[in-house]
Amino acid sequence: MARSVAAHREAVKELLSGLARLGSTEELPLMAALGRVLADDVLAPLSLPPFANSQMDGFAVRSADLAPHSGSDVGAELTVVDPVPAGAFPARLMPGTAAPIMTGAMMPEGADAVVPIEQAVPDVFPAPGVSATVRLPTTEPGTFVRDAGSDITEGTVALRSGTALGPGQLGLLAALGMTAVEVRTPVRVLLVTTGDEVVEPGTSLPEGKIYDSNGTLLEAAMVQSGLRVTRTGISSDNPAALEDLLHAHLGAIDLIVTTGGVSKGAYEVVKQAMDGQAVEFVSVAMQPGGPQGIGKFDGVPLLGFPGNPVSCLVSFEMFLRPALAVVVGIPALRPSLQARLTESLTSPAGKHQVRRGTLLPGGSVRLEGGVGSHLIHALANSNALVQVPADVTELDAGAEVEVWML
Amino acid sequence: MARSVAAHREAVKELLSGLARLGSTEELPLMAALGRVLADDVLAPLSLPPFANSQMDGFAVRSADLAPHSGSDVGAELTVVDPVPAGAFPARLMPGTAAPIMTGAMMPEGADAVVPIEQAVPDVFPAPGVSATVRLPTTEPGTFVRDAGSDITEGTVALRSGTALGPGQLGLLAALGMTAVEVRTPVRVLLVTTGDEVVEPGTSLPEGKIYDSNGTLLEAAMVQSGLRVTRTGISSDNPAALEDLLHAHLGAIDLIVTTGGVSKGAYEVVKQAMDGQAVEFVSVAMQPGGPQGIGKFDGVPLLGFPGNPVSCLVSFEMFLRPALAVVVGIPALRPSLQARLTESLTSPAGKHQVRRGTLLPGGSVRLEGGVGSHLIHALANSNALVQVPADVTELDAGAEVEVWML
Repeated sequence: MARSVAAHREAVKELLSGLARLGSTEELPLMAALGRVLADDVLAPLSLPPFANSQMDGFAVRSADLAPHSGSDVGAELTVVDPVPAGAFPARLMPGTAAPIMTGAMMPEGADAVVPIEQAVPDVFPAPGVSATVRLPTTEPGTFVRDAGSDITEGTVALRSGTALGPGQLGLLAALGMTAVEVRTPVRVLLVTTGDEVVEPGTSLPEGKIYDSNGTLLEAAMVQSGLRVTRTGISSDNPAALEDLLHAHLGAIDLIVTTGGVSKGAYEVVKQAMDGQAVEFVSVAMQPGGPQGIGKFDGVPLLGFPGNPVSCLVSFEMFLRPALAVVVGIPALRPSLQARLTESLTSPAGKHQVRRGTLLPGGSVRLEGGVGSHLIHALANSNALVQVPADVTELDAGAEVEVWML
Repeated sequence: MARSVAAHREAVKELLSGLARLGSTEELPLMAALGRVLADDVLAPLSLPPFANSQMDGFAVRSADLAPHSGSDVGAELTVVDPVPAGAFPARLMPGTAAPIMTGAMMPEGADAVVPIEQAVPDVFPAPGVSATVRLPTTEPGTFVRDAGSDITEGTVALRSGTALGPGQLGLLAALGMTAVEVRTPVRVLLVTTGDEVVEPGTSLPEGKIYDSNGTLLEAAMVQSGLRVTRTGISSDNPAALEDLLHAHLGAIDLIVTTGGVSKGAYEVVKQAMDGQAVEFVSVAMQPGGPQGIGKFDGVPLLGFPGNPVSCLVSFEMFLRPALAVVVGIPALRPSLQARLTESLTSPAGKHQVRRGTLLPGGSVRLEGGVGSHLIHALANSNALVQVPADVTELDAGAEVEVWML
């Protein structure tokens, strides 16, 4: 009985939740922490804004000076005092005066509102040092003032442990005066391509063999997802050699991912090498990527992906990547959207089919290549995975499908 | 008269299309090219698959041996010959025989179809060296055979110049036997935060001043987008000092981005430093991020973003990032989707409003913080930009809005 996609994803999530590495942290300068995950809650060491400041270029005023009862129902004529540029510590604002103030500049003590320059008569700032008056309209207290702490208050949680650090989060840490941050150490994955039929790119290609694309494909996907990858090169179809290879790396890795050798053929090296280990070989109701290995090799979590490149990427995107997003906090889940098929498709009964496609302007999706899991050129021309649920066997052109953007 | 968002984006695109750097290329190993852009078309140096191979674990056969006229309408009994593991160069298949064959293994000369092991009687492979026969059903020629070149043919275009290199594209290059690739040199941007009110994080914070968050925020966004960033540190409100700073870097950069000093106040250092240069200061009908500088400083393209952090990020996302995607090929455009507001909002007439929000499971979006462009904590809690078109002044809770995923 094949296992559902959701059940296998849950199993991968559970496997990852036991990663030994999850508690390990390191301190990094802000820019080096881009794409990493916060190890602890960060409390704001100061309030933002740190002080009340002007939201506009205009005049800082005492709103009471402009209140209707002060002699006019359209505001008042005030004496212009020294301007307050952003970054300056201003003098106290005396009654009956207005201080030219720039966006972001500190509100003078005594001032409680800002009148934008566009509402002033005249609507230009007088030259510094020239004595002048300005007519300003009635203004409510607090108008165009950004209060101290209105974005965040000192001592409260600025960012939660587990937050992925992108531009906005790092910008906030900088705004709080920080230059470094404690982040989780990346999960270290050992990536092993298996099979007598694969040879390294850059070498000559004997008849009957193919170049290894799984190593590059998965390393790139893993690096983009925040994993630290060690590649072993290609392991042959000799199970003892594969076991030795894995043993040689055990101390320095958190997760093993193999490709190939998990199917029903006569030479399934990963299956053979896992004899006696707590590794299951299951059939997931998915096309491609059905045969999957999952378990632990000498206590280290292991995922055995199938050997075809499209199956490898689909396995990564359907199982490992979303499990990482939930357990580790990076990468973000793939954006999912609805799109209309440009052509019909068929899908095997009882299997969740994952097709490759290109999302077109206007919200339709074109399939790239057929169902074959060896079609890496078609994959390279795709920007989306088209999800066809297990209970769907055919879809007409124009049908709505769920699409994951790669 | 304010310029529309679309018109300003077009202007930024045109500015970028003149970048001197666009023709410069370099050769990189595949993994170092992750996230880069292909400099030239890549022609396939070999076909994929390089040879006809089996799509299944099963028996390679001559389909004529199983045709109904050969004595049975349910196939035939064939003599099992030596198995063909993946990676082997098989012997010619003689009439009346069937060769056990593994997925991906080369089809023997003479064989033209594969019968999956599940359809064989018995449905297991005999032990090697034991003489055996197998009953196989009638099978069409070509069944479960992946023809040579069915993914791509030698000499045809594998990837087009300008393609962004992700896991699928690098995997294809590896499958083609390549180890290195010619990519475009990254655009070099000089990033200058201006303003007497900003100080570097990690230093003490005088009254009236704030820490520079724009530098970190934009550097992170630019690095994620494939730009090579040089940060100058903070430039004061002295226009001559800013001019000197820009001149000092001119030979080694392709684009200048400044923050602050482009508004209508009395101390607008970028405006002042651009006196005599071909730089326009325009008002874009957008909230936040209305004031924008655009043009060339001594022939080098320059964008002047406003000084508040949210305005900076919105400027980057609305103008520079999409223009880069079109002109340079990276990053990818932000995924855009429709979501329902969890609360009502108002927006100024005639201005395109960009609010920050969190996309929630189920397709609704919650606004984070108010409209204030200083609210970087709210920005750090967001994963989406909510787009409110210029002709919309209010939206009810439940209204559909366009959302860009960050």
